[in-house]
This record gives sequence, C-alpha cells and structure tokens, in this order.
Amino acid sequence: MLIHVVNPNTTVSMTDKIAAAARAVASTGVEILATQPETGPVSIEGYYDEAFAIPGMLMRILEAEKAGAQAHVIACFDDTGLDAARSAVSSPVIGIGEAAYHVASLIAGKFSVVTTVAQAIPVMEHNLVRYGLASRCARVRAGGFEVLALEEEGSDARAKISAEIEAAKVEERAEAIVLGCAGMADLAADLSVEHGLPVIDGVAAAVALAEGLIKLGVKTSKRGGYTPPLRKPYAGAFAAYAYPG
Amino acid sequence: MLIHVVNPNTTVSMTDKIAAAARAVASTGVEILATQPETGPVSIEGYYDEAFAIPGMLMRILEAEKAGAQAHVIACFDDTGLDAARSAVSSPVIGIGEAAYHVASLIAGKFSVVTTVAQAIPVMEHNLVRYGLASRCARVRAGGFEVLALEEEGSDARAKISAEIEAAKVEERAEAIVLGCAGMADLAADLSVEHGLPVIDGVAAAVALAEGLIKLGVKTSKRGGYTPPLRKPYAGAFAAYAYPG
Amino acid sequence: MLIHVVNPNTTVSMTDKIAAAARAVASTGVEILATQPETGPVSIEGYYDEAFAIPGMLMRILEAEKAGAQAHVIACFDDTGLDAARSAVSSPVIGIGEAAYHVASLIAGKFSVVTTVAQAIPVMEHNLVRYGLASRCARVRAGGFEVLALEEEGSDARAKISAEIEAAKVEERAEAIVLGCAGMADLAADLSVEHGLPVIDGVAAAVALAEGLIKLGVKTSKRGGYTPPLRKPYAGAFAAYAYPG
Amino acid sequence: MLIHVVNPNTTVSMTDKIAAAARAVASTGVEILATQPETGPVSIEGYYDEAFAIPGMLMRILEAEKAGAQAHVIACFDDTGLDAARSAVSSPVIGIGEAAYHVASLIAGKFSVVTTVAQAIPVMEHNLVRYGLASRCARVRAGGFEVLALEEEGSDARAKISAEIEAAKVEERAEAIVLGCAGMADLAADLSVEHGLPVIDGVAAAVALAEGLIKLGVKTSKRGGYTPPLRKPYAGAFAAYAYPG
Amino acid sequence: MLIHVVNPNTTVSMTDKIAAAARAVASTGVEILATQPETGPVSIEGYYDEAFAIPGMLMRILEAEKAGAQAHVIACFDDTGLDAARSAVSSPVIGIGEAAYHVASLIAGKFSVVTTVAQAIPVMEHNLVRYGLASRCARVRAGGFEVLALEEEGSDARAKISAEIEAAKVEERAEAIVLGCAGMADLAADLSVEHGLPVIDGVAAAVALAEGLIKLGVKTSKRGGYTPPLRKPYAGAFAAYAYPG
Amino acid sequence: MLIHVVNPNTTVSMTDKIAAAARAVASTGVEILATQPETGPVSIEGYYDEAFAIPGMLMRILEAEKAGAQAHVIACFDDTGLDAARSAVSSPVIGIGEAAYHVASLIAGKFSVVTTVAQAIPVMEHNLVRYGLASRCARVRAGGFEVLALEEEGSDARAKISAEIEAAKVEERAEAIVLGCAGMADLAADLSVEHGLPVIDGVAAAVALAEGLIKLGVKTSKRGGYTPPLRKPYAGAFAAYAYPG
Repeated sequence: MLIHVVNPNTTVSMTDKIAAAARAVASTGVEILATQPETGPVSIEGYYDEAFAIPGMLMRILEAEKAGAQAHVIACFDDTGLDAARSAVSSPVIGIGEAAYHVASLIAGKFSVVTTVAQAIPVMEHNLVRYGLASRCARVRAGGFEVLALEEEGSDARAKISAEIEAAKVEERAEAIVLGCAGMADLAADLSVEHGLPVIDGVAAAVALAEGLIKLGVKTSKRGGYTPPLRKPYAGAFAAYAYPG
Repeated sequence: MLIHVVNPNTTVSMTDKIAAAARAVASTGVEILATQPETGPVSIEGYYDEAFAIPGMLMRILEAEKAGAQAHVIACFDDTGLDAARSAVSSPVIGIGEAAYHVASLIAGKFSVVTTVAQAIPVMEHNLVRYGLASRCARVRAGGFEVLALEEEGSDARAKISAEIEAAKVEERAEAIVLGCAGMADLAADLSVEHGLPVIDGVAAAVALAEGLIKLGVKTSKRGGYTPPLRKPYAGAFAAYAYPG
Repeated sequence: MLIHVVNPNTTVSMTDKIAAAARAVASTGVEILATQPETGPVSIEGYYDEAFAIPGMLMRILEAEKAGAQAHVIACFDDTGLDAARSAVSSPVIGIGEAAYHVASLIAGKFSVVTTVAQAIPVMEHNLVRYGLASRCARVRAGGFEVLALEEEGSDARAKISAEIEAAKVEERAEAIVLGCAGMADLAADLSVEHGLPVIDGVAAAVALAEGLIKLGVKTSKRGGYTPPLRKPYAGAFAAYAYPG
Repeated sequence: MLIHVVNPNTTVSMTDKIAAAARAVASTGVEILATQPETGPVSIEGYYDEAFAIPGMLMRILEAEKAGAQAHVIACFDDTGLDAARSAVSSPVIGIGEAAYHVASLIAGKFSVVTTVAQAIPVMEHNLVRYGLASRCARVRAGGFEVLALEEEGSDARAKISAEIEAAKVEERAEAIVLGCAGMADLAADLSVEHGLPVIDGVAAAVALAEGLIKLGVKTSKRGGYTPPLRKPYAGAFAAYAYPG
Repeated sequence: MLIHVVNPNTTVSMTDKIAAAARAVASTGVEILATQPETGPVSIEGYYDEAFAIPGMLMRILEAEKAGAQAHVIACFDDTGLDAARSAVSSPVIGIGEAAYHVASLIAGKFSVVTTVAQAIPVMEHNLVRYGLASRCARVRAGGFEVLALEEEGSDARAKISAEIEAAKVEERAEAIVLGCAGMADLAADLSVEHGLPVIDGVAAAVALAEGLIKLGVKTSKRGGYTPPLRKPYAGAFAAYAYPG
Repeated sequence: MLIHVVNPNTTVSMTDKIAAAARAVASTGVEILATQPETGPVSIEGYYDEAFAIPGMLMRILEAEKAGAQAHVIACFDDTGLDAARSAVSSPVIGIGEAAYHVASLIAGKFSVVTTVAQAIPVMEHNLVRYGLASRCARVRAGGFEVLALEEEGSDARAKISAEIEAAKVEERAEAIVLGCAGMADLAADLSVEHGLPVIDGVAAAVALAEGLIKLGVKTSKRGGYTPPLRKPYAGAFAAYAYPG
C-alpha cells in the first residue's frame, strides 16, 4: 500500500517531520512517499501563500498518482488545493485539516482548533463551514507565533499551544483539541496526557483515514465538482498541466 | 486488535451478515467480535424499536469492553444508542450511519442515502443534523421495503435500491451513495460498478474508521456529554447497569 | 380531562414534586395522573441514564394511554424518549424541555437555560438543534450541582441557579430564563420576581401546552417518523412491548 | 379570563368568523373580545398591506390591554406587527402564524403550510426563519386564490387547499398541515379527517396557547427587543400613540 | 440622476445631516432629494417606533417615485419598512443597514455593528438573518446612548462608539465596523483612521449602491414577495394609500 | 478613476467581451484596464482550472495596483483567487459572482443562477455559503454547454440559458436571475425583457460596485484573513511573488 503525503510548502525539514509523523501511524506494509513542491512559499500562512503553493503541489500529486499512490494526503491545515487535487486524480485525497476535524467528530461532541497565527483562522473557519463541521467546532484559536517557530529550538511555541488548550477547556468547554498545523505533529501525544483530553494531529489522522479508504476501495467521485478537468489548452508556464487525465 | 461489532437487533442471521462484511474489510490481525443483544426487536425501524434495542446492546458493549475490545461498532444505521455507548466506555464507539456519512464526505461533495422504509428517514435526518453533515447530504431516500426483506430470497429489494440510486443521480445530482441499512452490506460493490459512483456500506466504513482510531490511539473524550455516568442507584431490572465504570 | 405526567426517573419524591407543580397549573377539572417507572435510574444526568429510563417510562405511557390519558408529559428536561413515546401512542406527548423552549419563544426574543450538571448541557443543545429553537437559545448554563441536591435541605443549589441567571442577563443579554430540570419547578415564580424577567418551569409549561393540544383536538401525526411501530417480535425481557398498538 | 383577538384587516365578516373560531376552542369562562382596526386594508396580502394595518391594530391592542385583556392574539398569518405589539403591552401577544407553527412542531416532525396567494409565501418564510422553525417547515404552498375568495359562495378555494395538502403529503412527505390564513379557520377539522393527518388552524392554536400563557402567569419579557418604547414625541396623526406605557 | 433619501423619523435636523452625508458621496450630476414623513416618531428605537414611521415614509416614497426618483434610500438602520417600500414602487429601494452590511461584506471577512441603544440590537440581528449576512456579522454592539444624543453638543456618544470599536477588535476580531445609526454618518472617516480598519456609514453606502443599481438599470423584481399590492379598498385614514400603482 | 478588470483565463476574445461589458456600465471618466494572465487555462470550468489561473492573475493584479488601479474586478464567476487577491493589495477586489449575488439580493427576495457546465455548480454553491448568501439563492442551474460555446456562432447556448430561466421561474419561483459566467455579459438585457424579471450580469454588477467602493473610499480590511502576506521566501518559479507589499 502506497500513500503519498505532500507537504505543500517547500521547507524540507517540515516534510521530514511530517513524514515521520505519517510513518509513526502507518500500518506495517504501508509505504509513505513524502514530497514537497519545488516552487512556492516556505510556509503557508493565509490565502496568498496558499495560491502559490498549489500548482507545484498538484504536480507532485499527479506524479505520485502515476507512481502508484493509492491515496494522497495534503499536509497543510488549510487543506491547500484539496478540491483541485480531487479533480485531478481518482485516488482519494485527504487534507490534514479535514482529517483531524472528522476524527475529532468521532470521539467528542465538540472540539477546538489551536493554530499558529491569527490570519490562518478565517481559512480554517471557511473550511469548517464547507465541510459541514463548523457546528462541531467550538472555536479556532491562534497561539500567536509563526509556523517556522515550531522548528526553532528555544521557541515558546509549545507553551503557547498549551495555554490555548487550557483556555479552550475553560472558556468553550472543548471536549477535544485539534492541533491546527502540520508542524505540531510531534506534540499531540504529550499534550493529550497533559490536558486529559484527546489531542488530534492531522497528519496521523489523515494517514489513518487514507489507509481506511484504500481498504474500503472507495475512490473520489467523478461526478459533480470533481469531474475530471475538461480537455483544453493551458497557456504559458502551466501548459504541461493541461489534460492531467 | 479486537473490534466489537454489535448488531443492535436480535436477528442472528443479520449479525452473521454484518460480521462477514466487517471481516471482509478488516486488516490481517484484526479480530471481529460480533454480537447481538438477547432482548429487543428483531429489526429496528423507527424510534420505538430503537428504544428497546439500546439496553441489551449496552450490555454487549460493556461486556466487550471488559473482554478487551479496543473499539465498538454499532451496526444499525440509526446509530442506535451511540451517545449512551460513548458515555459508558472509554474505547471509541462508531455508528455505521455516522461512519458512512464521514467516508462519503471524504470522497464526494454531496451524497444521498438510500434506506428501507420511509419512517426510518427522520431518524437519519436528525442524526445528520447533529453530526453537522446534513449540508453534505442531498437527500435521504427510502426504497419502500422492510429491513427483513433484504434477507428474503426473491425479494425485489435490490431492484428498488438501484432505482433510488438512479433517481438520486438525476434528481439531486448525488455524487456518492450511502446504503442506509446494515443489511445492505453485501450490495455496495456491485451497485457502485452498476451506477459508476462510490457506494458506501456503513459496516465496512465503520470497521475501517475503527481501525484508524485504534491506530491513532485516540479514545472517546470523557469531558462534556460523554462524562462517565455518575454513581447512582438503578431500580428494578436495570440495577446491574448502574456504575458501568 | 386526564393528563399523564411521567417522571422518567424512579425517585418518588421527585414525582410528587412534579405532580404538585402540574396540579398547580392545571385547570379545574383536569386530572393529573403522575407516575414513574419501576426500573431505571434514580435521576437522569446524561445519555447513559436516559437509555435505561426509557423502557420503563414507555410502559407507563402505554398504560396511561389505555387508562384514558388524553396527553402525556415527559417530566425530564432531556425530553427522555420523546420520539419513541410519540411513535407508541396517538395522544400528544410533550417533553418539559421542549415545552419550556416553546413557551419562552412566545414571550421573549431569546432565552438562556440554567440546568444542573455540565454533562447535561450537550443533550439539551442537541434537542434545541433538532427542535429548530437553537437560534432562540442564547446559551445553556449549568449551575454545577447534581439533580438530587435540589431535594436536599441546606443545599446551595438555589443560590447557584440565581447566580447563573444573573450572569445570563449580563453576558448574553438573555430576555427570559428556562429552568432546565424538573426538580426546579418550585423556584420559577420567586426567581422571576427576583430577576425581573420571565422564568419558565417546564412542568407547568408542558401541562399548559397539553391542555391546549387536548382542547384543539390535535393528535400526534402518524405519518413519517411517528408511524406506529411495525408488527414484529421483540425478544427477551421486552417481548411484552412489541405491537403496542 | 379575557383574551383579545384582533383581526388586523378591516373586514368585519372576517372578524366574526375569527371570533367564532376563537370561541369554539376557548374554555368555559374565557371571554373573547374580537376587534378590527378602523383604518387599513380589507385584507392583508403581502408587505404593503401589512404596513397600513399595523397602526390601527396597535390602537386596538392598547385599548384592549387597558380594558383588562390578559393576552392578545393577532389573527393574521403574517403575524402582522407582532414585535411592535409585544413592545407596547406587557400581556403576552401571540400571532396565529407563530401559534400554528409551534403547535405543529409539537405533534409532527415536519409540516407544510398552505396559504392563499403566492406573494404571501415570502412573508411566512421570513417569519419561520426568525422564529427558528424554518427547519420544521417542509414547504410553504399557495393555493392560488385571494383571501376574500374564502368568504365567497361557490368559490373553489377549498378544493384548491385540499389539492395542495395532497401534494404536500406526496411531494415533501409533510406530516402535518398548517392552514396559512385566518379565513380558513372553519376548514381544519374536515380537512384533517379527509387527509388523515393533523391540520392546524392558527386562530384556535393561538387561543389555546394564550390560555396556556395566562394560566402560567408569564408575560412578555421587557428586556431586549421588547423594551417598552422610549418616551419621545410622535408628530402628526400618530401623536396619540407616543408613550403607550 | 435623482436619488430619494428618506429619513423615516420626523426630526428635520437629522434629515439635514443625512442629506449632507448623501450629497458628500453622490457623484457629480446626482441630485439628492431628502425628505422625512409628517407623521411618526422623532427617532426610531425599537419595533414600536418603527411601526408608526412606516405609513408616512411610504407616502414620501410614493411621491418621490412620481417625481422621478430613480432609487430610494431608507435612512434608518432598522431598514424601516423596506419590504413594503419595495412592493410599492418599481425603482430600487435600499436600506442603509442593508447597504452597510453588503459593503462591509465586500471588503472584510467579518464585521461588527456599533449602534445606540441595546433594544435596537434584536431588530438588526433579525435583519441580518433575513439578508443572509448574519454569518458575516461577528456581533451587534450598543454604545448605550439614545439616538438624539448624537445631535447634542458635549455628549459622550462618540467616545462610547470608539470604545465599542476597540472592544470589537479585541473580543471578536472584527475586521470592519458598521456604524449602526444614520446619525453617526459624520463619524465614519475619523473613526476609520483612529482604529485602522474600515468603518462603514450606511447612508454613504446606500447612496453609492443606489447609483450603482441605477447605472445597471436593474429594478426591484415584481415577482414573489414584492408583487405590487393587489387592488383592494383601504378603510379610514389610509384610504389614499390603496392602489399605489 | 481607474478600475482593473482581470479575466483570469487566457482567452483574449473573452477579455475583449468583458472589457466591453465593463465599459458599457462605467461612468464617464472611469477608465477600465482590462487584462488577462499569460499563463493558465483558456477557460475556467471547475476547481482544477481555477488553481492554475490564479498565479498569473495575481501578477496582473499586483501590476495594476502599482499602475494606480483603485479597484480590481475578477471577471470569472468562480471568483477565482478572490481571497488571495484581497490579501495582496489594499484596493478593493470584487469577484463578479459575488457582485451579482449582492446586487440580486438588493432587488429580489431570492434569485437563481444559470451557469454553463454542471461541474461549475459546486464551486458557486460553496462560494454562496461562504458569502452568507446561500439563503438568498434558490438554485444554481447549468445549461449544459461549455464556456467557449458562448463565443461560437450558431451555438444553442442562448436558447439553453433561456430555458433554464423559464424553469427557474416555474420550479423555484425565482424572483431574479444571475447569469453565472462572464461570457454571458451581453445577454442580460435581452433576457430580462424576454422573461420579465431582473437578469444580472456579474461584470456590470462588479464595475458598478467597484465605482461605489472607490467613491466611498473604503479599502480591503487588513485585519484577519486579509492580513498582508508575511515576509518569507518563495522557492522556484514564484520567487518574484514573495513580499508583494
């Protein structure tokens, strides 16, 4: 079983961390192919970064699909380019934000999300509305530090996340926590013990769901919004992306 | 890995069918413990049947938890007694309705449900609202036959299901189909090929999700609505159920 | 006119209190038949207790219907087993939670609920969503004491309720208060005067609505979700409950 | 007990019909004071008519409050001027649309409304959204005849209503019907028998609820939107309406 | 191009202020006709005042339409009588509340409203729900002063508005502010600079949108809720308003 | 006044058509700068095309902003890259889908959208949910022809659009129509006369709203989701896009 995990930003150290988180949960015999695009931002914080991450990420997904990947995981909490990716390939595609929200909904009445910077909140709120799970999310919180701080030694990022979890328990009676950034993958287990409630990491959640979908043999529906792209010319730099099918 | 699949009605032949569907999707090394309650209705069609299925089903869940079950699947599309079961044990509990809705939401923009009798529709509609996934469900349809017809040779139940799927594609542009009854588990693969869109069976979906949750190590939150039952006396026939913890 | 008020828990002193609250509001000539089940929990706090209260409560409702009850009131704020009860009999069935929310909606733009323990909150929130009245409810609050504390002398339960009402006025600008527990029936009038806003007790509200429905001659619809239970065997302890019609 | 039923249009024959419907359901000892404004349209069909019906109707409500009315019923399905009336007096005020929706919600999972002309539909849909009960209403239908046709001999209005009820049962699986016009009050009982499901008349529903609120002793909240009008001058024709308190 | 701006209250100084705000934003060549009714309250604070402002306001709108107005702006944040006005004339009619919410939705993810007295909040919340834009509004806040205080020298109204804006930025992370009263028109520019976020005045917003609709040549739809009033007698003082068409 | 209208696909003939539609509605003295990206698909039909249109489109928007554009119109009904564009510049950015929905909401209770291919429907439905205007949209319909058919002589595209409008009037009682494709800009006026209801073209609507926002002096909020992109490296082909501010 081959699962492709794509980090949509170009920071290799984050890809490595994501790959480790993915492999830690993957079943025996499941191979994790971890990639990142060649072009685009070093981290994704807000709508603008997202727009430039998608083309390179889609290339990785198309390549991995040809290489036999049976499912794709988009390892950014924005679920960057999820709809475009689903249109492009027939294997299931799962965003780590989406995966974490679904898993949290299966083990708690309502959950809160803790992410990095405040400008990332609206993206997640919009996704939650679209997925239908906004009613299950009590609040999206930001710790107030940049994504790359999670990679820096001596950063107080973990302490800030922990403080937000505490606040979520008291203020909105959150029953579970979703860690809203792929870079937080290694903190989930500890924070769960510390706070006495389930803390969900999206990378692990997505890999678990991807294995499940592969086992079920279900693929992305090709009716409606995920109809394969119509045959048409693409001008300029993206010419090679036309007709992915 | 031990997964408990409980058929909340008392029809053993349906338990067997459910167990087969569960085992068909379970990974190597996963043991399926299939049970049904000793008391209650032979099938669950509507709120009244549901009420009498729950106590016996909870007994099976408590027993299985003690026997080492790491997750429980409630194999009725009503997700019979799901909240009570979650309160009673710490392992994850997944309803097959819920499981199918979540899986369908991961591979399609919107889905329709095809169930048996019309009086089962409101129960599912209510569940979908509570889960937050009502916005993903285009419509819940009933084929117009009783649950046990699925067990009878010569029944036209399958033809009726197929006709509803066709109508769902045309009338509400459904992108995927959820089969809304545990007794339809064996039809999903064929109907998917016949209609050219994903057809989700809840039993398989729930087992796949249960494996995923076990791998992730997440358990039901014990904060909020799933707080363990408070210590108090239970009068009469249910005395033994008090203090499940 | 005969109205059946069933206390779904087995605590007789609470039945007596509920009966008194019901009789206090009942019109001249209206007889109140107050019952409680023989089996089940002594109080209902959360989903688990609820599951074991329902079978015994349904027996009381079926008996009372045969004895000529023209309406049934379920005297627990969870509206325990409301849908099952509606399926079982043709007389109207009203939950005291539901009744209080409807009455509050008729005399205020939005209301808050004050209940006992925090784990009771999600049950009520789910009901409010299903009834459609979640948009009218500003917040469900818990005083932080167990149901039976309301029966104990010297308890600070009343003071805690009053503090929550004060907070509801300030924090969410609640225009009316619903007391979220049958055991608070005797406090409504005083708290209304103390706080200068309508305070609704569900038992009284339900009896008033039940009288209204009887006068109107409307009965529970037998189409859709409340279709009478289909004829089928019930195994074991519940055999006698099959075919209530 | 004195209940004021105000017909917000100026057609006396409709007031008489409404008064008869009100008296038919009122308990022994309940006096019905039926009025209509001196100014305004002879029937209310759409937003424009409504605007001109309100001032005269509010005068009647203020007069009746002074005359000892303990509750007011606004006998137009638009619930004409309901919020203004609630601000003006302290007794409960109930619109017949609102009353019918609440009653239907107590005895059916979902209901359809059958009204007169198509331009009345949006007003009711807006009210349903505001009340929170839009999720309980499957559809608002128009028979396609003017309000006053209900008063004409030989009109096919009743046949058109019956056809819409039939369609509601088939097309949206309505479990109950609300008759969406005060002028249909005399048809409810017959149509209920004919179609085998509850058919709710708003006038009767509102009187039953008004009696209930009086018995409960609850009054309109004077916090929030229904705060009594601030003391200020009113210019011109409406000077007498300033400071109703 | 002639745009009619009607102040629905009878305070001429407020009409003047509104006219100035309208003229300040109007394009060269656009004439602003500013009016107020002869009858009704001197300010509109809550549902009751609103009811008495509408008839006189509709007269002004009918007159202005005959005088060649190509669009009408209702200059009260309640959007007083908006639906009735739309039914009465074929030119577009825009409420200043509505205009401000639409403009804010075009330049910010979510906005907060700052109005005068707390009893005005529910009216605006209801409008937001009906318009569909409630999901874009983070919160409606009241400064706690009466409308006419905005006209008084030495009033602390401006300071109170500024404090609410500050709170909206911190507490609900508002991205833009809507000033919820026509009398605040002159404060928007300054407050925007002071707080570093867009501050929208409804009068200016409505005039800008009105110009846009005139340029587009679109008129109010005469299908559905805005169907012209049916031909029928109006009794008493309002006789002249029947058949506006 | 300079308004930038960007056609996010690379088909110059469509840019010309859009520019003509924009100029037809623009006020005297308003200059329309019409552009299209150098890279990307020749038309946008679904999520995949959209992803590859955005980077080139954002370049045009950044260039135009530097050239003095005071507002930007994104001339694709998907509102392609709207959020990213808003993050990138401080001038207002308006999508033509969004513009048409807002304009339709100002002159009708509810509207239907008529677009080209069925796979474009979900994108628009998602946008409507996010904007809050889903409750105002009765239905999104597809005529069943590709975007470029609108450019072909002898195509039956116009007839198909007209048929959908007729169906929208009858089936969902639509009060106004939004033409859901930039390529339909030249059909709105005729179809409005033919069908007797407002027919909104998004290009004209967006230009009218853009002029309005410029006149009002409001700019995109830079708090929350539209916070300017953080300073960070962009790898590969998109390096030049980093730090647009």
